[in-house]
Amino acid sequence: MTLSALDSSLLGPLFATDAMRAVFSDEARVAAMLRAEAALARAQAAVGMVPDGLAPAIEGITAESLDPSALGRRTAVSGVPVIPFVKAVQAALPAELEPGFHKGTTTQDIADTALVLQVRDALDLVAADLTAILDGLSTLARRHRETPCVGRTYGQHAAPVTFGFKAAIWALGLAEIAADLPRVRARIQTASLGGPVGTLTGLGDKAEAVGDGFAAALSLHPDLAPWHTRRARVAETGTWLVLVMGALAKFATDVAHLATTEVGEVAEPYVPGRGGSSAMPHKRNPVSSTVILAAFAGAKGFGATLVDAMAAAHERPAGPWHAEWNALPSLFGLASGALREARGLAQGLVPDPERMRANIDLTRGMLFADAAASRLTASLGAKAAHALVEEAAGAVRDGQGSLREVLERRPEAAGIDLGPAFDLGPAIRAGARTADRALAETARLAALVG
Amino acid sequence: MTLSALDSSLLGPLFATDAMRAVFSDEARVAAMLRAEAALARAQAAVGMVPDGLAPAIEGITAESLDPSALGRRTAVSGVPVIPFVKAVQAALPAELEPGFHKGTTTQDIADTALVLQVRDALDLVAADLTAILDGLSTLARRHRETPCVGRTYGQHAAPVTFGFKAAIWALGLAEIAADLPRVRARIQTASLGGPVGTLTGLGDKAEAVGDGFAAALSLHPDLAPWHTRRARVAETGTWLVLVMGALAKFATDVAHLATTEVGEVAEPYVPGRGGSSAMPHKRNPVSSTVILAAFAGAKGFGATLVDAMAAAHERPAGPWHAEWNALPSLFGLASGALREARGLAQGLVPDPERMRANIDLTRGMLFADAAASRLTASLGAKAAHALVEEAAGAVRDGQGSLREVLERRPEAAGIDLGPAFDLGPAIRAGARTADRALAETARLAALVG
Amino acid sequence: MTLSALDSSLLGPLFATDAMRAVFSDEARVAAMLRAEAALARAQAAVGMVPDGLAPAIEGITAESLDPSALGRRTAVSGVPVIPFVKAVQAALPAELEPGFHKGTTTQDIADTALVLQVRDALDLVAADLTAILDGLSTLARRHRETPCVGRTYGQHAAPVTFGFKAAIWALGLAEIAADLPRVRARIQTASLGGPVGTLTGLGDKAEAVGDGFAAALSLHPDLAPWHTRRARVAETGTWLVLVMGALAKFATDVAHLATTEVGEVAEPYVPGRGGSSAMPHKRNPVSSTVILAAFAGAKGFGATLVDAMAAAHERPAGPWHAEWNALPSLFGLASGALREARGLAQGLVPDPERMRANIDLTRGMLFADAAASRLTASLGAKAAHALVEEAAGAVRDGQGSLREVLERRPEAAGIDLGPAFDLGPAIRAGARTADRALAETARLAALVG
Amino acid sequence: MTLSALDSSLLGPLFATDAMRAVFSDEARVAAMLRAEAALARAQAAVGMVPDGLAPAIEGITAESLDPSALGRRTAVSGVPVIPFVKAVQAALPAELEPGFHKGTTTQDIADTALVLQVRDALDLVAADLTAILDGLSTLARRHRETPCVGRTYGQHAAPVTFGFKAAIWALGLAEIAADLPRVRARIQTASLGGPVGTLTGLGDKAEAVGDGFAAALSLHPDLAPWHTRRARVAETGTWLVLVMGALAKFATDVAHLATTEVGEVAEPYVPGRGGSSAMPHKRNPVSSTVILAAFAGAKGFGATLVDAMAAAHERPAGPWHAEWNALPSLFGLASGALREARGLAQGLVPDPERMRANIDLTRGMLFADAAASRLTASLGAKAAHALVEEAAGAVRDGQGSLREVLERRPEAAGIDLGPAFDLGPAIRAGARTADRALAETARLAALVG
Repeated sequence: MTLSALDSSLLGPLFATDAMRAVFSDEARVAAMLRAEAALARAQAAVGMVPDGLAPAIEGITAESLDPSALGRRTAVSGVPVIPFVKAVQAALPAELEPGFHKGTTTQDIADTALVLQVRDALDLVAADLTAILDGLSTLARRHRETPCVGRTYGQHAAPVTFGFKAAIWALGLAEIAADLPRVRARIQTASLGGPVGTLTGLGDKAEAVGDGFAAALSLHPDLAPWHTRRARVAETGTWLVLVMGALAKFATDVAHLATTEVGEVAEPYVPGRGGSSAMPHKRNPVSSTVILAAFAGAKGFGATLVDAMAAAHERPAGPWHAEWNALPSLFGLASGALREARGLAQGLVPDPERMRANIDLTRGMLFADAAASRLTASLGAKAAHALVEEAAGAVRDGQGSLREVLERRPEAAGIDLGPAFDLGPAIRAGARTADRALAETARLAALVG
Repeated sequence: MTLSALDSSLLGPLFATDAMRAVFSDEARVAAMLRAEAALARAQAAVGMVPDGLAPAIEGITAESLDPSALGRRTAVSGVPVIPFVKAVQAALPAELEPGFHKGTTTQDIADTALVLQVRDALDLVAADLTAILDGLSTLARRHRETPCVGRTYGQHAAPVTFGFKAAIWALGLAEIAADLPRVRARIQTASLGGPVGTLTGLGDKAEAVGDGFAAALSLHPDLAPWHTRRARVAETGTWLVLVMGALAKFATDVAHLATTEVGEVAEPYVPGRGGSSAMPHKRNPVSSTVILAAFAGAKGFGATLVDAMAAAHERPAGPWHAEWNALPSLFGLASGALREARGLAQGLVPDPERMRANIDLTRGMLFADAAASRLTASLGAKAAHALVEEAAGAVRDGQGSLREVLERRPEAAGIDLGPAFDLGPAIRAGARTADRALAETARLAALVG
Repeated sequence: MTLSALDSSLLGPLFATDAMRAVFSDEARVAAMLRAEAALARAQAAVGMVPDGLAPAIEGITAESLDPSALGRRTAVSGVPVIPFVKAVQAALPAELEPGFHKGTTTQDIADTALVLQVRDALDLVAADLTAILDGLSTLARRHRETPCVGRTYGQHAAPVTFGFKAAIWALGLAEIAADLPRVRARIQTASLGGPVGTLTGLGDKAEAVGDGFAAALSLHPDLAPWHTRRARVAETGTWLVLVMGALAKFATDVAHLATTEVGEVAEPYVPGRGGSSAMPHKRNPVSSTVILAAFAGAKGFGATLVDAMAAAHERPAGPWHAEWNALPSLFGLASGALREARGLAQGLVPDPERMRANIDLTRGMLFADAAASRLTASLGAKAAHALVEEAAGAVRDGQGSLREVLERRPEAAGIDLGPAFDLGPAIRAGARTADRALAETARLAALVG
Repeated sequence: MTLSALDSSLLGPLFATDAMRAVFSDEARVAAMLRAEAALARAQAAVGMVPDGLAPAIEGITAESLDPSALGRRTAVSGVPVIPFVKAVQAALPAELEPGFHKGTTTQDIADTALVLQVRDALDLVAADLTAILDGLSTLARRHRETPCVGRTYGQHAAPVTFGFKAAIWALGLAEIAADLPRVRARIQTASLGGPVGTLTGLGDKAEAVGDGFAAALSLHPDLAPWHTRRARVAETGTWLVLVMGALAKFATDVAHLATTEVGEVAEPYVPGRGGSSAMPHKRNPVSSTVILAAFAGAKGFGATLVDAMAAAHERPAGPWHAEWNALPSLFGLASGALREARGLAQGLVPDPERMRANIDLTRGMLFADAAASRLTASLGAKAAHALVEEAAGAVRDGQGSLREVLERRPEAAGIDLGPAFDLGPAIRAGARTADRALAETARLAALVG
């Protein structure tokens, strides 16, 4: 029984990947808690605080053997899962090792460090998708760097660009956020070890050594000072994921519109059975765009919850920390589905250059209004040239011919060669050049994602 | 494997109830879809559009037999669960009944109507909790209508109230929102039947009769015009739940503070093992308040997603509708946990009148500063009286005695009997009277929740 | 100097109306505070608590004479504007009246009651716009109840509807929210009079009489119990405004898309100079839709802030209440601009029935796929009919003719008269019927807006 | 007349600084637009596209001479302020220079570049405040590195820390975000120059040279590819500001609680007239914390609006971009007030070490429960030791003595020296050590803020 669509067996496969679900599964969570405890035991054994046998003993316990469901029933009483977890591990350990277990640490250390281990795996999944998407979009952009297509502002035909330019902007828009992943990863890949109130009092002057050993055993950064209530790193991870999904949403917004019936400049990759309708046999709905846009709509709320959690009172708050437990994994869940779909789009989007060309011709030269005005400016002045073309555009709308025809009938334009203004060449060259710059920058940034 | 803490076997029991999880389970969802299809078949049979045997045949199919997981795998392709569902039902029906199945309707009709049936059950759960909480808080307020306690503004001691007054404000704060449930319920308990684009073209002039019969068979309001992209009712349900949780959050904010060590005026109900710490054996953390505040923190994001979904393009949008699928059930999930905990608090909160009294005495009469200034106003004027007491308050802070002592030493106060200002009686009577008014209004409103 | 675009002399005129700005101006705020104090004095005079001359004396003071800017400088110190306000009024009153001023009340009573008086005026402005928009949209819908146009789902052509149906859905989508205005208004039109901690201790057993008199003097509902920290009514007003803007956003989303170059089914009302571009002389950008969508984007954040403010500690919180001061007036500001633009659209939108008709023909009969499948279902079964039409749709996309032609070539369709499936008549009749129902309901609801 | 509390003459001084208001004033905005146009003219003159005299002529025009209010009235028609601005400048230029003005560029280039110039000034103000706050908190932390005080989790006394540790966590919590300022600044300090659809077609092969010259003239990074609809940098600036305010909110949450009457461990800096009440002469409300928490509550909504704006369609969207115009300056406005108040707190907060010590003693040794359990663990085992202390804690609550007394009476504790567990020394040393680490890291990070 599930409440979240992410976990529903009926809906979940649409919105999240199994790989991401595995990362945040209860088994993975308990296993990560065990890893954290074992790392602590190892670090403490190194300074002689606990027996050498403790860490291996903890490592011998499996998540399954602790029965997450049984722990869950007790979590509903205790308020945090670490408490029943600690009791269950204590019960599973030999009596002589039990006293050394969970020494000097606290609930939040274990829960947060486990989360960080899960997030590391999750970010690896995200990184792989980001790299694939950037690669796919860059290839698409290169292929169409000189394919002319309509540039649109406010939903209106504006001036010509190239489809490669558009794809390069999608790529760069994602790459500029993706390139921040190393910083985000470094920030979140920090062990949490502060003990009850963050000062590790119980470890005395061995606190730093244990802290360093603990982090090293998990390949995490040590916690220079407790982040129990310095939650920026969690909020940053969340916020970064939301920005990633914002860049995907820009891509999906464009794709969904380009795929509309009247525009028809792209189609989502064809998958048999995809995008149908229970009623309308002809439908090819843009499912990938839909999933991405739905994910972005949901992601923003989770991001806000994580930011909210920053106002965490004193050494541990009543509420904000708990709210993270749902928000962060759910956010990764939504991201996993959005990234999977974006990857499919980046690799398989089907552009229709003929349709792009036909759409350019739709407005009888209006796309060149800016260029025409520029050519008229030298003799008329900018304001008058703008006004003349504006008026001519009205005549075109009224069916009096193409923009060029209308303008060439005007006495003000006499003797001015308007031909070059209506040449697609400059727009294609400008689009290709801009795409090249965007792709070079994308490549530089993509190399940082690693 | 789960992503959401609501569905985790480790964390879910803390945050949501099994009853609510059952309402939104995949089995319940598929069962509700079957109920919707059967109701449609029944309504269409009544006007001779489909065979009489179709509805019973649909009713003979169980959710389990359709295998939600198998449907889910196909949902990831199709983009909506109704499509594999329709195919699976078609396959399960006798050949002669199959042509009449899902006639004139569309994916969204079935999905939305099923949702509405689940929401009806969910609102029943919510209503029961609301009634119990209002009852519990009202009892608490009546019991303590004359128990004096500190009133606090900006976290500072302000003037005396009664604990019953505070509890009555909690009750009324929830009741005023709860009383809106009938309106919210009426709005959302509306069948969706519009067909592919909302006009039920395929049903011809039988559209209204079928629509009425469909709704009647499900005890829902008929859909006077399609709400496929008029999503206010969904947003309203979500927003209302968020407001409910806002009222609970006010309650929990107060309880968490009153339960802090220094204040100590209330304790959450004692439950063995509750609120402990893995490190600190003495801890009694306010788990119920924590769950409520965490739920509110998460709820706001889901509410925002549902509001976002209102900007739904044309006859069905690409994204916003899908985003509702996670947000609404998750919101009910969070609400279920918050309501359960609030019910526990309302019924079991342990006030400590002695501590309340001790806290009143903590500031040596400062709580009566307003009353003292009032008594001085007649002879000194309001501004001067305020200034005098303000200055005297500084002297009290500096340890020069109680406010009454300090004031009585001042020449300006000579001949003025300040005694009555320091009498708790008027504050107790005023608190009790206000509590009575609040409780009467609460009772009136609670009767509407039904 | 201004920070908010709403108040900028450069940008403000685009986003908010002067009428709404006047409602929430500092002068209006101070005047409302004076009205609240005068009403209190009047109510207290009626029970003999203060001299009869106090209320008229307060009424003789003008907002201007109190110099809002000077008060503002002192607000930055005091933390609330009521404190310098009270001092300034005290200084302006004759010495013998001063002691009776602001008796038994507190900062929040005056600030909240003044806000409520401003909100009353603001809601009147909103109501007038809502009525005009509903009227405009209803007229538009009636005029085009039989104008055929494409129905779109997921951005794809789905099946035919009528433009009147679409307009009627816009109208009903707004009307169903607008009809809730009386409830929202009744909730917020409640005086606040609780005194320092909400119990009106200082007024003794005259508290109720004064409370009733205070509210009556302002034509507000009396406050049965203090709403100092029961903020649902403020959050509800905000949430309702956001829902209103959500309905407008649905309208604007559709208009902006229908006005895109390729679709061209509507144009925003022509206003000389509107929607131009500094570079592209031919542009006619949909400015009204843009303003509405921008307002909705901003409104959601303000709504969230108001909901956040519900978790208000004890008798007055440190922060949440103050956050309302920016959020609520700003929200009304955004609403004023969005409503003005929506009114312009509702009254002046320019549909293009010829273009609608041309778009219907664009997909060579695909819009009738559902109808065609229905006709084939009787002999083929639903699943097979769906599959056949799905396959035929592919052939149409590949240029093998219209859907009818392709289907009629198929042996499975032999002997089945597909003609009726491709008749626009049923869709027009169904669209018109649905529009009629929606308009009847809109009229019923619009009558409640008052 | 103003709608936003930020701009109100009555409320604005409380919530925002005049310095920040000046940065985003209409005069500053128009001046920045003029600077952008002049920089473009200079860059174009360098490649021979426009006369050398154009840039100086533009620089000779003042913002005042263009009359922002007059431009504003026309903005309400045009939809963007750049259009009337361009016309006004054209009218002010000599006829021979007019044709070269605004060449190849577009509305959004000028508006976004102007915004970026304003943001640069705004970030300088923010940086100065951040540095001062970090300095103030670090000094506070050093001064109190060994001042013992209660550590609190879930609002409950947990274990001892030092006040310096708490202050160091506030400092580090802010520093870790502040240190990201150079990245944020570098991202947003990027000129926008793309022309109508982002490809600078009109500038031909001089596009890059002009773009570089334009950026250089403004000391901005050049725009490698247009960011017209790659809005991550704006969202990042906004998100970063929200995180800054989240760190301030954590600080303010703690201060507001430590300043509550019962806790009394700190007081906000004393300012005559600050934090009073219109009714209660003794009040000293924590105004700075209130302003910070209110700012954070409002900031989150603006941050969400900026993230929303990322889903910007094609080459310019209808709505999302416009929504930024209110959100970003308002966010800086809220930040300015929050930073000013945080600076005041950081430099002037008044800790009360005696009260801290008294609060430590409040719970009769319970703060040492963890330490006591640790000492018992060696002989009893961890689980039994925890259980014993838990039970003893109950006895302490029941008034049976201090925790040490109760434990020493227990047979299980016979022969175990519990004395060291109740020594404050280890907690003080651990707190001081942790504070030192946090301060060293804070210093490292603060040096990056620049």
